[in-house]
Amino acid sequence: VTAVDATEAAALLQAAREGRRPALARLLSMVERGGDDAREAGTVAHPLGGDAYTIGLTGAPGSGKSTLTTALCARVRRDGDRIAVLAIDPSSPFSGGAILGDRVRMGEHALDDGVFIRSMATRGHLGGLALATPTAVRVLDAVGFPWVVIETVGVGQVEVEVAGAADTVVVVVNPGWGDAIQANKAGLMEIADVFVVNKADRAGAADTVRDLEGMLSLSDIEGPRPAIVSTVATDGSGVDELWEAIADHRRRITEDGTIVERRRRRIETELSELVAATLAQRARVAVDGAGFDAAVGEVAARLTDPWTTVDRLLDGSA
Amino acid sequence: VTAVDATEAAALLQAAREGRRPALARLLSMVERGGDDAREAGTVAHPLGGDAYTIGLTGAPGSGKSTLTTALCARVRRDGDRIAVLAIDPSSPFSGGAILGDRVRMGEHALDDGVFIRSMATRGHLGGLALATPTAVRVLDAVGFPWVVIETVGVGQVEVEVAGAADTVVVVVNPGWGDAIQANKAGLMEIADVFVVNKADRAGAADTVRDLEGMLSLSDIEGPRPAIVSTVATDGSGVDELWEAIADHRRRITEDGTIVERRRRRIETELSELVAATLAQRARVAVDGAGFDAAVGEVAARLTDPWTTVDRLLDGSA
Repeated sequence: VTAVDATEAAALLQAAREGRRPALARLLSMVERGGDDAREAGTVAHPLGGDAYTIGLTGAPGSGKSTLTTALCARVRRDGDRIAVLAIDPSSPFSGGAILGDRVRMGEHALDDGVFIRSMATRGHLGGLALATPTAVRVLDAVGFPWVVIETVGVGQVEVEVAGAADTVVVVVNPGWGDAIQANKAGLMEIADVFVVNKADRAGAADTVRDLEGMLSLSDIEGPRPAIVSTVATDGSGVDELWEAIADHRRRITEDGTIVERRRRRIETELSELVAATLAQRARVAVDGAGFDAAVGEVAARLTDPWTTVDRLLDGSA
Repeated sequence: VTAVDATEAAALLQAAREGRRPALARLLSMVERGGDDAREAGTVAHPLGGDAYTIGLTGAPGSGKSTLTTALCARVRRDGDRIAVLAIDPSSPFSGGAILGDRVRMGEHALDDGVFIRSMATRGHLGGLALATPTAVRVLDAVGFPWVVIETVGVGQVEVEVAGAADTVVVVVNPGWGDAIQANKAGLMEIADVFVVNKADRAGAADTVRDLEGMLSLSDIEGPRPAIVSTVATDGSGVDELWEAIADHRRRITEDGTIVERRRRRIETELSELVAATLAQRARVAVDGAGFDAAVGEVAARLTDPWTTVDRLLDGSA
């Protein structure tokens, strides 16, 4: 892992735009690493962004998200569009750039240049997923993917927020009342634009649809009700209907202009996270090392007060 | 509530040092308000600090902390020393400067100029108790109290830490095995320099002493074992022994020099908290108002990238 400078990042992006996948993979590894590397990758990609449309796809572990994503990729390819997937799963054994993991995920699309699937892991560094995801989307957008799926496990606040910030948010549940309840508890009810009852060939699927309808009718969500689609991702049943529901939602938010507001809010969140991460980094530097030890000694000896000391630690005046 | 400037703060401190209690109360209200007011009060007090010795006193709600504190005040007064108490209880109906609440607490000491009891509440502002407490101690120190008791409810991380940062930490439990277990869970075991089994006239007091001894013998705390003292705060039984245990601990940490390290760690914590609070304030300013809205618009329009924008928001260059 070595730092990549701006010139190199620009060269990688150019290569990725020409279809070279290793270059794209390297750019996304820079994004995963965060900090200056993510900044370089994001800065070269940002002005080249077009209008990639993002689909957030989230749900409980085991709900069939990745099978559904693969089926969506096949559906999109039928129209000839290219599609990229960011698969974010903190419990995944595949860390960033894990070629094997992504190859397994690619499955039927492994030989198709129109599909790009990437697992993302951003353990430990500041801002983590909340910062890496929009920058990874920026890179995929600049490379020319018109569709980007952001697939997250629907547990954990950050994971839910990351998928929930997409243009269209798909929440996957399975037959069984408990699943709808869990989705509600995890805050998935508020973010869903489309509900999918996947594994709809199992017992209780119709009940789950009715449960969802009931919960939606009790909720006070503004605007049109989310669509509810039943799928069997493993055999492709209902995937066309899911794609229609996503397209309907896209049409609606484009026509009524709420897509502009959605994207604005996404940038607001990203800038707030970036402010917090930048300041947290400054805080770490301020309370670390010999300068801080000396400052503690001066306050203890009453040579200076804590407030003056902290101003000095943060603003670097000696 | 109006802001107080540095000259006023200095005048208030001078008056408080001459024994004027309303001036002292006003300074502590400034500390409670946090921000610039706390800074003014702390800055004038800091260089005038002497060597007030702090006693943290904590335990579950209802364990008799305030009665014990009152008894300790009486004990200290027998030696002619002055003593101040900061009573920190987030569930208390008495907010900062609540004259009635503090008068009730004063009780037998209401007419005694050598005892000062103050409830502290620091709802909502950044850093809260962790910043207000050392600054309040600083003010009481500058006013000339050689003893300051910091009384907190031993539930909640901040409350435990605030009492646990004192020179000598007294943990109050009551008869009954559950209480010792709870104290252990709440992290009180690690911070105790002296254990008090209060309400020791109740059934099970001897068992509780034995339980504490057992837990201490199983623990891997470094240094000498904490003393265990049994008291009945309501009739004063055992209070002399408690005072002796505190004095013993003071003697020991003064002789072996660990008091210097304790106070150094306290300042480290305070400076870290102040760094965090200062940066959090800067973050709030950065993401608020017209400048932020304009920045979001520029990023959305791809006129500038998020990183350049955040640098500009934080460092003010236009």
